[in-house]
Amino acid sequence: MPIQPLKKELVSFLEPYMPENAGVLGEQEKPYVILTYAQSLDARIAKIKGTRTIISHQETNTMTHYLRYKFDGIMLGCGTVLVDDPGLNCKWWPDDEPKPEHFAEHSPRPIILDPNGKWKFEGSKMKTLFDSGDGKAPIVVVKKLPEVVEENVDYLVMQTNFTGKVDWHDLFIQLKSQFGLKSIMVEGGGIVINDLLQRPHLIDALVITVGATFLGSEGVEVSPLIEINLKDISWWKGTRDSVLCSRLVSHS
Amino acid sequence: MPIQPLKKELVSFLEPYMPENAGVLGEQEKPYVILTYAQSLDARIAKIKGTRTIISHQETNTMTHYLRYKFDGIMLGCGTVLVDDPGLNCKWWPDDEPKPEHFAEHSPRPIILDPNGKWKFEGSKMKTLFDSGDGKAPIVVVKKLPEVVEENVDYLVMQTNFTGKVDWHDLFIQLKSQFGLKSIMVEGGGIVINDLLQRPHLIDALVITVGATFLGSEGVEVSPLIEINLKDISWWKGTRDSVLCSRLVSHS
Repeated sequence: MPIQPLKKELVSFLEPYMPENAGVLGEQEKPYVILTYAQSLDARIAKIKGTRTIISHQETNTMTHYLRYKFDGIMLGCGTVLVDDPGLNCKWWPDDEPKPEHFAEHSPRPIILDPNGKWKFEGSKMKTLFDSGDGKAPIVVVKKLPEVVEENVDYLVMQTNFTGKVDWHDLFIQLKSQFGLKSIMVEGGGIVINDLLQRPHLIDALVITVGATFLGSEGVEVSPLIEINLKDISWWKGTRDSVLCSRLVSHS
Repeated sequence: MPIQPLKKELVSFLEPYMPENAGVLGEQEKPYVILTYAQSLDARIAKIKGTRTIISHQETNTMTHYLRYKFDGIMLGCGTVLVDDPGLNCKWWPDDEPKPEHFAEHSPRPIILDPNGKWKFEGSKMKTLFDSGDGKAPIVVVKKLPEVVEENVDYLVMQTNFTGKVDWHDLFIQLKSQFGLKSIMVEGGGIVINDLLQRPHLIDALVITVGATFLGSEGVEVSPLIEINLKDISWWKGTRDSVLCSRLVSHS
């Protein structure tokens, strides 16, 4: 399905938060990282755990494809990937260019956080898109290499700590040094977002779509364990959604 | 403390949702009722239960006073009133009128939901404002009349059901028929809002301020038990906050 045209005003709205405007941040060891997701008014990103929920309006869906055009990598937890089977490619291209024959070139590299090896590239929508030249093959972040490695997949083996989590700082640095990813957008799911919201030294910006609906208290929630303050706040007002761009204030 | 001037664009933004534009709704047995509150991105209206948290920017604080000018009654649960000790009066007046000597006339009638008689008017900020002519005396909704009734307070005795809750429909009708309140804004707290969000036949509009901050998962949350869909959606973009106006879609 083709996407809607991008609203012109979104380009200037997003500009200060895009990787090319990162300035000295772009020269760091760590890639430029944003968190971006769509939530309901009651801060739910899905109605029920294990289901996919469409929250954003078509115009903010197009914005997501524009972001994918701008970023080198797109990161998701395996829970979300197993539920949604997302394509993660970029279907947007600049107005002054002809429609690309294939979408792979402009698409970000998928990065799947799958420490316990639950997800398979084979049979996924990502694989279908890769096969037709419309998407890139993923980097899968694992605790140890699977017994049978999949063709075209790059594995990044990371140690986990005693709570089963990877060291985010180390992970981002490896993604830049080993795979050349200078910018990464993190799209979900809830566990990944809640964890990264508390790491202002790693996250360079937030792009949050707020949809005008309540998904209800049984939904998958975004709410960090601690209070988080924001700065450089900017809102865009859409038809049904609003979008917030901002940066995280570092803990004192 | 005086409030900031009202942003002109907020007047036209709010207009379709104001009681004077309720049309036939204004002729009903039930008053025109809106829910209005300020929340963080993670749908928290307070950081910790039992504490007051300022979420909204000064410009949306002024909007609240403008709403109080427009509505006959302002309703709160006693939990919020006990914690915040709010004044609930209206400090806004139209530009083309001289500053009022006192604020009582333009202020809404406070309606405190206090089934078990925990709150006292005596010693409250509401009482101070009432004494100086800057606020109205409250209607207190109780299960039974207290042994010692307070001067200037009107009591509305309502039966509660087996879960200790009043019948909302009956309550609103009594507030109109007994006290002449044709319009009521409900400001909180969490329990009241979550309950009323699920009653689209009683709630005529929502006015929700979304502040650009995360209060954290320990905060007081607004999220109804069930999914709620909205219609007639309109967003206003402020400096740090966005405001959503909308109506609830009735359950099919």
